[in-house]
Amino acid sequence: MVRTRVHNQFVSLDGYSAGEYVTFDQPIGDASRLFGWFDGRVIEGVHRVQEPVTLDRALFSMWGQGIGAEIMGRRKFGPQQGPWPDDGWRGWWGEQPPFKTPCFVLTHHPREQMVFENGTSFHFVDDTPEEVLRRAKEAADGLDVRIGGGPTTVRQFLRADLIDFMHLVIVPITLGRGVSLWHDVTGFEDRFALESVSSSSGLTHQLWNRRSTGS
Amino acid sequence: MVRTRVHNQFVSLDGYSAGEYVTFDQPIGDASRLFGWFDGRVIEGVHRVQEPVTLDRALFSMWGQGIGAEIMGRRKFGPQQGPWPDDGWRGWWGEQPPFKTPCFVLTHHPREQMVFENGTSFHFVDDTPEEVLRRAKEAADGLDVRIGGGPTTVRQFLRADLIDFMHLVIVPITLGRGVSLWHDVTGFEDRFALESVSSSSGLTHQLWNRRSTGS
Repeated sequence: MVRTRVHNQFVSLDGYSAGEYVTFDQPIGDASRLFGWFDGRVIEGVHRVQEPVTLDRALFSMWGQGIGAEIMGRRKFGPQQGPWPDDGWRGWWGEQPPFKTPCFVLTHHPREQMVFENGTSFHFVDDTPEEVLRRAKEAADGLDVRIGGGPTTVRQFLRADLIDFMHLVIVPITLGRGVSLWHDVTGFEDRFALESVSSSSGLTHQLWNRRSTGS
Repeated sequence: MVRTRVHNQFVSLDGYSAGEYVTFDQPIGDASRLFGWFDGRVIEGVHRVQEPVTLDRALFSMWGQGIGAEIMGRRKFGPQQGPWPDDGWRGWWGEQPPFKTPCFVLTHHPREQMVFENGTSFHFVDDTPEEVLRRAKEAADGLDVRIGGGPTTVRQFLRADLIDFMHLVIVPITLGRGVSLWHDVTGFEDRFALESVSSSSGLTHQLWNRRSTGS
Protein backbone atom coordinates (compact mmCIF):
# COMPACT_ATOMS: atom_id res chain seq x y z
CA MET A 1 0.00 0.00 0.00
CA VAL A 2 1.34 3.40 -0.97
CA ARG A 3 0.75 6.03 1.72
CA THR A 4 0.57 9.81 1.67
CA ARG A 5 2.51 10.95 4.74
CA VAL A 6 3.21 14.17 6.63
CA HIS A 7 6.27 14.31 8.90
CA ASN A 8 7.68 16.73 11.45
CA GLN A 9 4.90 19.24 11.06
CA PHE A 10 5.50 21.66 13.95
CA VAL A 11 2.46 23.40 15.39
CA SER A 12 2.35 26.00 18.16
CA LEU A 13 -0.15 25.76 21.02
CA ASP A 14 -2.28 28.30 19.21
CA GLY A 15 -2.26 26.28 16.01
CA TYR A 16 0.29 28.08 13.84
CA SER A 17 2.79 26.23 11.67
CA ALA A 18 4.55 29.10 9.91
CA GLY A 19 4.98 32.83 10.15
CA GLU A 20 3.00 35.36 8.19
CA TYR A 21 5.87 36.85 6.24
CA VAL A 22 8.32 34.69 4.34
CA THR A 23 11.40 36.51 3.12
CA PHE A 24 14.84 35.51 1.87
CA ASP A 25 16.12 36.06 5.41
CA GLN A 26 13.29 34.21 7.12
CA PRO A 27 12.40 31.02 5.26
CA ILE A 28 9.67 30.18 7.73
CA GLY A 29 8.54 33.71 8.32
CA ASP A 30 8.62 35.07 11.84
CA ALA A 31 7.99 31.63 13.33
CA SER A 32 11.53 30.36 13.65
CA ARG A 33 10.95 29.66 17.34
CA LEU A 34 8.86 26.70 16.24
CA PHE A 35 11.98 24.96 14.99
CA GLY A 36 14.35 25.64 17.85
CA TRP A 37 13.91 22.02 18.93
CA PHE A 38 15.04 20.58 15.69
CA ASP A 39 18.41 19.68 14.24
CA GLY A 40 17.46 19.12 10.63
CA ARG A 41 20.18 16.57 9.99
CA VAL A 42 18.24 13.98 11.98
CA ILE A 43 15.83 13.55 9.07
CA GLU A 44 18.53 11.35 7.55
CA GLY A 45 18.74 9.19 10.68
CA VAL A 46 19.58 9.36 14.37
CA HIS A 47 23.23 8.65 13.57
CA ARG A 48 23.56 12.01 11.83
CA VAL A 49 23.60 14.02 15.05
CA GLN A 50 26.12 13.78 17.85
CA GLU A 51 23.49 14.27 20.53
CA PRO A 52 21.71 11.50 22.43
CA VAL A 53 19.12 9.35 20.67
CA THR A 54 16.00 10.79 22.28
CA LEU A 55 12.34 10.08 21.65
CA ASP A 56 12.11 13.37 19.74
CA ARG A 57 14.99 12.49 17.43
CA ALA A 58 13.78 8.93 16.93
CA LEU A 59 10.42 10.19 15.72
CA PHE A 60 11.88 12.96 13.55
CA SER A 61 14.01 10.36 11.79
CA MET A 62 11.02 8.72 10.09
CA TRP A 63 10.92 11.60 7.60
CA GLY A 64 12.68 9.88 4.72
CA GLN A 65 11.77 6.22 5.28
CA GLY A 66 10.42 4.76 2.07
CA ILE A 67 9.60 8.13 0.57
CA GLY A 68 9.71 8.27 -3.24
CA ALA A 69 8.38 11.78 -3.91
CA GLU A 70 7.36 14.98 -2.12
CA ILE A 71 4.66 17.56 -2.72
CA MET A 72 5.35 21.04 -1.35
CA GLY A 73 3.83 24.49 -1.43
CA ARG A 74 5.50 27.27 -3.36
CA ARG A 75 6.64 29.06 -0.21
CA LYS A 76 8.60 26.06 0.91
CA PHE A 77 10.58 26.37 -2.31
CA GLY A 78 11.12 30.12 -2.20
CA PRO A 79 9.82 33.51 -1.02
CA GLN A 80 8.87 34.85 -4.46
CA GLN A 81 5.27 35.68 -5.30
CA GLY A 82 3.51 35.99 -8.66
CA PRO A 83 5.37 35.29 -11.92
CA TRP A 84 8.83 33.87 -11.28
CA PRO A 85 11.61 36.43 -11.59
CA ASP A 86 14.66 35.47 -13.60
CA ASP A 87 16.82 35.37 -10.46
CA GLY A 88 18.55 32.00 -10.74
CA TRP A 89 16.79 30.79 -7.56
CA ARG A 90 17.01 27.01 -7.14
CA GLY A 91 15.43 26.69 -3.69
CA TRP A 92 16.62 27.37 -0.16
CA TRP A 93 19.03 24.46 -0.09
CA GLY A 94 21.77 25.21 -2.61
CA GLU A 95 22.97 22.35 -4.78
CA GLN A 96 22.32 19.69 -2.09
CA PRO A 97 18.59 19.71 -1.35
CA PRO A 98 17.80 17.13 1.33
CA PHE A 99 14.94 15.51 -0.59
CA LYS A 100 16.79 13.23 -3.02
CA THR A 101 13.52 12.43 -4.80
CA PRO A 102 11.25 14.17 -7.30
CA CYS A 103 9.44 17.09 -5.62
CA PHE A 104 6.25 18.65 -6.95
CA VAL A 105 5.96 22.35 -6.18
CA LEU A 106 2.42 23.75 -6.23
CA THR A 107 2.28 27.06 -8.09
CA HIS A 108 -0.04 28.95 -10.37
CA HIS A 109 3.02 29.81 -12.43
CA PRO A 110 4.46 26.63 -13.94
CA ARG A 111 8.03 26.71 -15.22
CA GLU A 112 10.80 24.40 -16.36
CA GLN A 113 11.79 21.61 -13.99
CA MET A 114 15.10 21.68 -12.09
CA VAL A 115 17.26 18.61 -11.64
CA PHE A 116 20.05 18.14 -9.08
CA GLU A 117 22.85 15.63 -9.01
CA ASN A 118 21.78 14.10 -5.67
CA GLY A 119 18.47 12.78 -7.02
CA THR A 120 16.35 15.79 -6.15
CA SER A 121 14.24 17.38 -8.86
CA PHE A 122 11.64 20.13 -8.68
CA HIS A 123 8.56 19.99 -10.90
CA PHE A 124 6.31 23.03 -10.91
CA VAL A 125 2.65 22.12 -11.22
CA ASP A 126 -0.66 23.99 -11.28
CA ASP A 127 -3.30 21.34 -10.72
CA THR A 128 -5.77 19.87 -8.22
CA PRO A 129 -4.45 18.02 -5.17
CA GLU A 130 -5.83 14.78 -6.61
CA GLU A 131 -3.98 15.21 -9.90
CA VAL A 132 -0.72 16.32 -8.31
CA LEU A 133 -0.88 13.33 -5.97
CA ARG A 134 -1.48 11.02 -8.92
CA ARG A 135 1.65 12.35 -10.60
CA ALA A 136 3.67 12.16 -7.38
CA LYS A 137 2.65 8.55 -6.80
CA GLU A 138 3.68 7.69 -10.31
CA ALA A 139 7.06 9.33 -9.73
CA ALA A 140 7.44 7.60 -6.34
CA ASP A 141 7.49 4.24 -8.10
CA GLY A 142 5.90 2.14 -5.36
CA LEU A 143 7.21 4.14 -2.43
CA ASP A 144 5.26 6.61 -0.28
CA VAL A 145 4.57 10.28 -1.02
CA ARG A 146 5.38 12.95 1.54
CA ILE A 147 3.28 16.08 1.80
CA GLY A 148 6.13 18.35 2.77
CA GLY A 149 4.23 21.48 3.84
CA GLY A 150 3.90 24.28 4.55
CA PRO A 151 0.70 24.36 6.55
CA THR A 152 -1.43 25.65 3.69
CA THR A 153 -0.46 22.67 1.57
CA VAL A 154 -1.01 20.16 4.38
CA ARG A 155 -4.40 21.69 5.07
CA GLN A 156 -5.35 21.52 1.41
CA PHE A 157 -4.59 17.81 1.23
CA LEU A 158 -6.20 17.14 4.59
CA ARG A 159 -9.43 18.79 3.52
CA ALA A 160 -9.39 16.72 0.32
CA ASP A 161 -8.98 13.60 2.52
CA LEU A 162 -5.79 12.63 0.71
CA ILE A 163 -3.54 12.12 3.76
CA ASP A 164 -2.99 8.68 5.28
CA PHE A 165 -0.52 9.53 8.05
CA MET A 166 0.51 12.70 9.88
CA HIS A 167 3.24 13.19 12.45
CA LEU A 168 2.41 16.51 14.11
CA VAL A 169 4.70 17.99 16.75
CA ILE A 170 2.96 20.26 19.23
CA VAL A 171 5.49 22.83 20.41
CA PRO A 172 4.81 24.37 23.84
CA ILE A 173 4.93 28.00 22.73
CA THR A 174 2.40 30.46 21.38
CA LEU A 175 3.02 32.59 18.31
CA GLY A 176 -0.01 34.85 18.37
CA ARG A 177 -0.15 35.08 14.61
CA GLY A 178 1.02 33.23 11.54
CA VAL A 179 -0.28 30.61 9.14
CA SER A 180 -2.65 28.29 10.98
CA LEU A 181 -2.61 24.59 10.28
CA TRP A 182 -6.24 24.39 11.33
CA HIS A 183 -7.94 27.28 9.54
CA ASP A 184 -11.25 26.00 8.22
CA VAL A 185 -10.44 22.38 9.11
CA THR A 186 -13.13 20.64 11.14
CA GLY A 187 -14.06 17.04 11.83
CA PHE A 188 -10.89 15.54 10.39
CA GLU A 189 -10.18 13.81 13.70
CA ASP A 190 -13.10 11.43 13.13
CA ARG A 191 -11.33 9.94 10.14
CA PHE A 192 -8.11 9.18 12.03
CA ALA A 193 -6.88 7.08 14.94
CA LEU A 194 -4.55 9.09 17.18
CA GLU A 195 -1.63 7.99 19.30
CA SER A 196 -0.12 10.81 21.30
CA VAL A 197 3.01 10.94 23.42
CA SER A 198 4.90 13.69 25.18
CA SER A 199 8.67 13.64 25.44
CA SER A 200 10.93 14.85 28.19
CA SER A 201 11.69 17.99 26.16
CA GLY A 202 8.07 19.14 26.42
CA LEU A 203 7.11 18.37 22.84
CA THR A 204 3.97 16.34 22.18
CA HIS A 205 4.09 13.99 19.21
CA GLN A 206 0.82 13.09 17.58
CA LEU A 207 0.71 10.13 15.19
CA TRP A 208 -2.49 10.33 13.17
CA ASN A 209 -3.30 7.25 11.08
CA ARG A 210 -6.26 7.40 8.74
CA ARG A 211 -8.73 4.69 9.74
CA SER A 212 -9.72 3.51 6.31
CA THR A 213 -7.02 4.18 3.80
CA GLY A 214 -7.65 4.43 0.11
CA SER A 215 -4.69 3.99 -2.19
CA MET B 1 31.24 10.18 16.52
CA VAL B 2 30.84 6.47 15.96
CA ARG B 3 28.36 4.87 18.40
CA THR B 4 27.83 1.34 19.61
CA ARG B 5 24.07 0.80 19.60
CA VAL B 6 21.57 -1.82 20.77
CA HIS B 7 18.10 -1.83 19.19
CA ASN B 8 14.81 -3.60 19.79
CA GLN B 9 16.09 -5.60 22.72
CA PHE B 10 12.92 -7.15 24.16
CA VAL B 11 12.88 -7.85 27.88
CA SER B 12 10.12 -9.49 29.94
CA LEU B 13 8.94 -8.02 33.23
CA ASP B 14 11.12 -10.56 35.00
CA GLY B 15 14.17 -9.60 33.00
CA TYR B 16 14.46 -12.34 30.39
CA SER B 17 15.41 -11.65 26.79
CA ALA B 18 15.57 -15.17 25.35
CA GLY B 19 14.52 -18.70 26.17
CA GLU B 20 16.72 -21.33 27.73
CA TYR B 21 16.72 -23.77 24.86
CA VAL B 22 17.50 -22.71 21.32
CA THR B 23 16.73 -25.31 18.67
CA PHE B 24 16.24 -25.29 14.92
CA ASP B 25 12.50 -25.03 15.51
CA GLN B 26 12.77 -22.32 18.16
CA PRO B 27 15.33 -19.68 17.17
CA ILE B 28 14.70 -17.70 20.33
CA GLY B 29 14.16 -20.68 22.58
CA ASP B 30 10.88 -20.94 24.43
CA ALA B 31 10.52 -17.16 24.63
CA SER B 32 8.72 -16.48 21.38
CA ARG B 33 5.97 -14.66 23.27
CA LEU B 34 8.44 -11.82 23.72
CA PHE B 35 8.27 -11.09 20.01
CA GLY B 36 4.54 -11.31 19.42
CA TRP B 37 4.44 -7.52 19.25
CA PHE B 38 6.89 -7.27 16.44
CA ASP B 39 6.63 -7.42 12.68
CA GLY B 40 10.28 -7.77 11.75
CA ARG B 41 9.93 -6.02 8.41
CA VAL B 42 9.63 -2.69 10.19
CA ILE B 43 13.37 -2.69 10.87
CA GLU B 44 13.72 -1.52 7.27
CA GLY B 45 11.32 1.37 7.81
CA VAL B 46 7.73 2.13 8.75
CA HIS B 47 6.73 1.95 5.10
CA ARG B 48 7.48 -1.78 5.02
CA VAL B 49 4.37 -2.76 6.97
CA GLN B 50 0.77 -2.14 5.96
CA GLU B 51 -0.30 -1.40 9.50
CA PRO B 52 -0.57 2.08 11.07
CA VAL B 53 2.59 4.03 11.90
CA THR B 54 2.50 3.67 15.67
CA LEU B 55 4.96 4.79 18.32
CA ASP B 56 6.14 1.18 18.62
CA ARG B 57 6.85 0.84 14.92
CA ALA B 58 8.46 4.27 14.71
CA LEU B 59 10.94 3.31 17.41
CA PHE B 60 11.59 -0.19 16.02
CA SER B 61 12.50 1.40 12.70
CA MET B 62 15.70 2.97 14.04
CA TRP B 63 17.38 -0.45 13.88
CA GLY B 64 19.27 0.05 10.62
CA GLN B 65 19.87 3.81 10.58
CA GLY B 66 23.51 4.50 9.91
CA ILE B 67 24.64 1.03 10.95
CA GLY B 68 27.79 -0.22 9.24
CA ALA B 69 28.44 -3.49 11.11
CA GLU B 70 26.86 -5.80 13.66
CA ILE B 71 28.25 -7.93 16.45
CA MET B 72 26.15 -10.95 17.46
CA GLY B 73 26.36 -13.96 19.71
CA ARG B 74 26.71 -17.41 18.25
CA ARG B 75 23.16 -18.38 19.16
CA LYS B 76 21.76 -15.57 17.11
CA PHE B 77 23.49 -17.14 14.12
CA GLY B 78 22.48 -20.75 14.77
CA PRO B 79 21.55 -23.39 17.37
CA GLN B 80 24.72 -25.47 17.08
CA GLN B 81 27.08 -25.87 20.03
CA GLY B 82 30.76 -26.82 20.16
CA PRO B 83 32.74 -27.39 16.94
CA TRP B 84 30.74 -26.46 13.86
CA PRO B 85 29.20 -29.46 12.09
CA ASP B 86 29.58 -29.65 8.32
CA ASP B 87 25.86 -29.02 7.80
CA GLY B 88 25.81 -26.22 5.26
CA TRP B 89 24.19 -23.88 7.79
CA ARG B 90 24.33 -20.23 6.69
CA GLY B 91 22.23 -18.67 9.45
CA TRP B 92 18.50 -18.49 10.16
CA TRP B 93 17.77 -16.14 7.30
CA GLY B 94 18.45 -18.07 4.08
CA GLU B 95 20.19 -16.19 1.30
CA GLN B 96 18.67 -12.78 2.24
CA PRO B 97 19.87 -11.96 5.76
CA PRO B 98 18.41 -8.61 6.86
CA PHE B 99 21.73 -7.15 8.00
CA LYS B 100 23.28 -6.02 4.71
CA THR B 101 26.55 -5.21 6.52
CA PRO B 102 29.51 -7.18 7.86
CA CYS B 103 28.45 -9.15 10.97
CA PHE B 104 30.90 -10.44 13.57
CA VAL B 105 29.76 -13.69 15.21
CA LEU B 106 31.30 -14.39 18.63
CA THR B 107 32.38 -18.02 18.89
CA HIS B 108 35.16 -20.07 20.43
CA HIS B 109 35.28 -22.00 17.15
CA PRO B 110 36.38 -19.68 14.35
CA ARG B 111 35.70 -20.74 10.78
CA GLU B 112 35.71 -19.37 7.24
CA GLN B 113 33.68 -16.22 6.62
CA MET B 114 30.43 -16.31 4.65
CA VAL B 115 29.50 -13.65 2.11
CA PHE B 116 26.02 -12.95 0.72
CA GLU B 117 25.01 -11.04 -2.36
CA ASN B 118 22.94 -8.46 -0.46
CA GLY B 119 25.95 -7.03 1.40
CA THR B 120 25.73 -9.27 4.47
CA SER B 121 28.81 -11.18 5.55
CA PHE B 122 29.48 -13.28 8.65
CA HIS B 123 32.91 -13.24 10.26
CA PHE B 124 33.50 -15.74 13.06
CA VAL B 125 35.71 -14.34 15.80
CA ASP B 126 37.09 -15.54 19.13
CA ASP B 127 38.36 -12.43 20.85
CA THR B 128 37.71 -9.90 23.60
CA PRO B 129 34.75 -7.50 23.28
CA GLU B 130 37.23 -4.64 22.91
CA GLU B 131 39.04 -6.30 20.02
CA VAL B 132 35.88 -7.44 18.26
CA LEU B 133 34.48 -3.93 18.54
CA ARG B 134 37.68 -2.50 17.12
CA ARG B 135 37.35 -4.78 14.08
CA ALA B 136 33.64 -4.02 13.71
CA LYS B 137 34.26 -0.26 13.80
CA GLU B 138 36.91 -0.65 11.14
CA ALA B 139 34.46 -2.61 8.98
CA ALA B 140 31.68 -0.07 9.64
CA ASP B 141 33.74 2.57 7.87
CA GLY B 142 32.55 5.61 9.82
CA LEU B 143 29.03 4.35 10.53
CA ASP B 144 27.73 2.98 13.83
CA VAL B 145 28.09 -0.57 15.17
CA ARG B 146 25.05 -2.49 16.37
CA ILE B 147 25.32 -5.00 19.18
CA GLY B 148 22.71 -7.36 17.80
CA GLY B 149 22.18 -9.69 20.76
CA GLY B 150 21.26 -12.05 22.18
CA PRO B 151 21.13 -11.01 25.81
CA THR B 152 24.41 -12.68 26.76
CA THR B 153 26.24 -10.65 24.15
CA VAL B 154 24.54 -7.38 25.11
CA ARG B 155 25.36 -8.05 28.77
CA GLN B 156 28.99 -8.78 27.93
CA PHE B 157 29.40 -5.44 26.13
CA LEU B 158 27.42 -3.58 28.77
CA ARG B 159 29.66 -4.88 31.53
CA ALA B 160 32.71 -3.85 29.52
CA ASP B 161 31.17 -0.36 29.22
CA LEU B 162 31.30 -0.52 25.43
CA ILE B 163 27.69 0.45 24.69
CA ASP B 164 26.70 4.03 23.88
CA PHE B 165 22.98 3.61 23.23
CA MET B 166 20.37 0.97 24.06
CA HIS B 167 16.75 0.79 22.99
CA LEU B 168 15.17 -1.73 25.37
CA VAL B 169 11.54 -2.75 24.99
CA ILE B 170 9.89 -3.88 28.20
CA VAL B 171 7.20 -6.40 27.31
CA PRO B 172 4.33 -6.75 29.81
CA ILE B 173 4.60 -10.52 30.28
CA THR B 174 6.58 -12.79 32.56
CA LEU B 175 8.53 -15.78 31.32
CA GLY B 176 9.58 -17.36 34.59
CA ARG B 177 12.82 -18.67 33.13
CA GLY B 178 15.19 -17.99 30.26
CA VAL B 179 18.33 -15.99 29.59
CA SER B 180 18.32 -12.86 31.72
CA LEU B 181 19.53 -9.59 30.32
CA TRP B 182 20.45 -8.48 33.82
CA HIS B 183 22.32 -11.41 35.33
CA ASP B 184 25.31 -10.01 37.21
CA VAL B 185 24.76 -6.49 35.86
CA THR B 186 24.65 -3.80 38.54
CA GLY B 187 25.13 -0.06 38.59
CA PHE B 188 25.08 0.38 34.83
CA GLU B 189 22.19 2.86 35.16
CA ASP B 190 24.51 5.44 36.73
CA ARG B 191 26.44 5.67 33.47
CA PHE B 192 23.38 6.38 31.34
CA ALA B 193 20.65 8.99 30.94
CA LEU B 194 17.26 7.33 30.52
CA GLU B 195 14.20 8.48 28.62
CA SER B 196 11.26 6.13 29.03
CA VAL B 197 7.88 6.11 27.30
CA SER B 198 4.99 3.69 27.25
CA SER B 199 2.92 3.16 24.12
CA SER B 200 -0.76 2.43 23.73
CA SER B 201 0.08 -1.26 23.11
CA GLY B 202 1.42 -1.64 26.65
CA LEU B 203 5.09 -1.78 25.69
CA THR B 204 7.55 0.48 27.49
CA HIS B 205 10.42 1.82 25.44
CA GLN B 206 13.59 2.76 27.26
CA LEU B 207 16.17 4.88 25.46
CA TRP B 208 19.45 4.66 27.36
CA ASN B 209 22.16 7.11 26.27
CA ARG B 210 25.59 6.80 27.80
CA ARG B 211 26.41 10.07 29.59
CA SER B 212 30.01 10.36 28.58
CA THR B 213 30.71 8.60 25.36
CA GLY B 214 34.14 7.44 24.35
CA SER B 215 34.69 6.70 20.70
